[in-house]
Amino acid sequence: MKATDDERLARAALSRLAEPGDEELGGLVLRDGPVAVWRGIERGSLSAKGLLRWRTRLVDLDPQADLARIQAAGGRLVCPGDFEWPSQLDLPEPWARQRPLALWVRGDVDLRLACLRSVAVVGSRAATSYGASVATELAASLAEKGWTVVSGAAYGIDAAAHRGALAVGGITVAVLACGADVSYPRSHDALLRRIADEGVVVSELPPGSAPSRMRFLVRNRIIAALSRGTVVVEAALRSGARSTAGHAGHFGREVMAVPGPVTSALSAGCHESIREGALCVTGAADVIEAVGVMGGDAVEERRGEERPTDRLDPDSLQVFEALPARRPAQLAGLVRRSGLDPSTVLRCLGALQRAGLAEGSDAGWRMRPPDCGT
Amino acid sequence: MKATDDERLARAALSRLAEPGDEELGGLVLRDGPVAVWRGIERGSLSAKGLLRWRTRLVDLDPQADLARIQAAGGRLVCPGDFEWPSQLDLPEPWARQRPLALWVRGDVDLRLACLRSVAVVGSRAATSYGASVATELAASLAEKGWTVVSGAAYGIDAAAHRGALAVGGITVAVLACGADVSYPRSHDALLRRIADEGVVVSELPPGSAPSRMRFLVRNRIIAALSRGTVVVEAALRSGARSTAGHAGHFGREVMAVPGPVTSALSAGCHESIREGALCVTGAADVIEAVGVMGGDAVEERRGEERPTDRLDPDSLQVFEALPARRPAQLAGLVRRSGLDPSTVLRCLGALQRAGLAEGSDAGWRMRPPDCGT
Repeated sequence: MKATDDERLARAALSRLAEPGDEELGGLVLRDGPVAVWRGIERGSLSAKGLLRWRTRLVDLDPQADLARIQAAGGRLVCPGDFEWPSQLDLPEPWARQRPLALWVRGDVDLRLACLRSVAVVGSRAATSYGASVATELAASLAEKGWTVVSGAAYGIDAAAHRGALAVGGITVAVLACGADVSYPRSHDALLRRIADEGVVVSELPPGSAPSRMRFLVRNRIIAALSRGTVVVEAALRSGARSTAGHAGHFGREVMAVPGPVTSALSAGCHESIREGALCVTGAADVIEAVGVMGGDAVEERRGEERPTDRLDPDSLQVFEALPARRPAQLAGLVRRSGLDPSTVLRCLGALQRAGLAEGSDAGWRMRPPDCGT
Repeated sequence: MKATDDERLARAALSRLAEPGDEELGGLVLRDGPVAVWRGIERGSLSAKGLLRWRTRLVDLDPQADLARIQAAGGRLVCPGDFEWPSQLDLPEPWARQRPLALWVRGDVDLRLACLRSVAVVGSRAATSYGASVATELAASLAEKGWTVVSGAAYGIDAAAHRGALAVGGITVAVLACGADVSYPRSHDALLRRIADEGVVVSELPPGSAPSRMRFLVRNRIIAALSRGTVVVEAALRSGARSTAGHAGHFGREVMAVPGPVTSALSAGCHESIREGALCVTGAADVIEAVGVMGGDAVEERRGEERPTDRLDPDSLQVFEALPARRPAQLAGLVRRSGLDPSTVLRCLGALQRAGLAEGSDAGWRMRPPDCGT
């Protein structure tokens, strides 16, 4: 089930060839598989008309070098089929052809496990102090309750959200519009290193890629798809954060917005979203109430590929989802999060440990990423 | 159609006898009419069991004196059947028995015409400066666009709303939980006098009545019923303003709330209302978009009683509703408000003038309250 080396090489090459979200390439890969498509291109036939626009990039393609480069940066390429691939990115039509070809990631945390219970917290670069403090608080509260905070590492709300999660030792995922090894904005160099140390930095662009206006917009769909819901903390009427929320809505994810003073132009986008149907959220409790519904979770949104969690009984699945990805949790915390009684939780932990899905220590229990896919 | 003197006297007496909203008395009046009910009580038969609790008040009843007293205060008693009676108070079951027996009013403006196009703006007594300034702005904007602002004359948001409307020469209606001639709170004496001078002060309690906790709550249903929608500007989670909004929702009126900082306890009630379905409004434009829908207006909510406007064609009705109750408007303004072309507006104004519903002068056009009901 794990992606083969050929597939990995082909996806690395194709992700360097075309711009992210290229639907023509995506459609071909979906139909023929990455290896066949890449071989066709190697043989000199950029048959699809739309692909011709990328032909100038063919001369520089060296997927082996890109793979070596991400490895040198302490990272890896995560492909569909890998255990670490977040299955919530496998959206149905009409978005299937926009699926990332692969994700270049840096960070010790398993991306899929980190995003099982995640919320995107996004907003304006030009945040007010109100917005920045609300984003920090919200992210910290979500992280404290075991939720991963996904954002875009931009100035303002994004940075505040990442910092809020990091401040309480939580997991945060930064989805970049440039290479996962590129520090953009430059002044977020330290922040991005910290996110890679304690969470995950993700990009569908190969190492060294520079950001562009288009890449920011296309990147937003990944933030929306990775998480169970998107919270816009502050946004002007026209803003990238609202585009992320728009994607979330299309993908069937919860769209949420934080209200603010009606006198603030940076809350106007949030209020407009609420008027258009976004849920008005005032804190982590509101967010969790909206996205934390039992049974509506990402694990069950799988499509076709078998997961190690597929054969778990409902109670064990519930306990599995209550497990933290990184910092171990004590039994009492797992009882609270799973909503099951202690003896049931203990029974399920035993089953999960035997299935290789949980590991226990003196510090408590946490998820255990398998060494490879099943 | 106008209430007879006997009816007027009976309603004055009954409104002194029972507490506002008494459903048993309301039911009897609805079934037998105010005169028969009052005669029965005069004859010494407080037959209905629930009415017995008011029997100590029988000795002091002097409806003639009450009518003289409101007249001395420059006011009058408005009864169902009078042209000035706002037909939107004639709610269907299960609220019909809570209909005010009569309204004691002070003010030169016709209550029914003033409330044809009205919005309630309510909120916390302990308003923040944010809330007070939003309420003032909102009320001023609504008044400038020809909307009457209804509120409860309390400290905080209510007072700010009245003042905002008055500041731009608009009409405002204060619904009190004490006699219409009583200044409560005492420090709003000047404000209440100004409202009576330029708008209307209303109460279902007879002159001289003191407020009580129960009377405040029961009063809220009138604020909600009089207006096309209720906007809560600031409210704690538990607050009287939210009870007004609750009534508005039950009565099929638009329920609206102004968002604010999530860090403010006085916006928490507004956010909770929005989460429960209230419309998030950020200014007068949002409010008018919600309540100003053509065809959904109070004039058409009549029940049974014939109105002078009943036989108007749709265009004339639209122009009638665009007419200001007090300060005359020029043709251009009426064209804008009615959404009809100038020649249609002129034709309709002629018809309205002939029907005695509009009066023209050098200053422009305004509604003309008839001398008596038809």
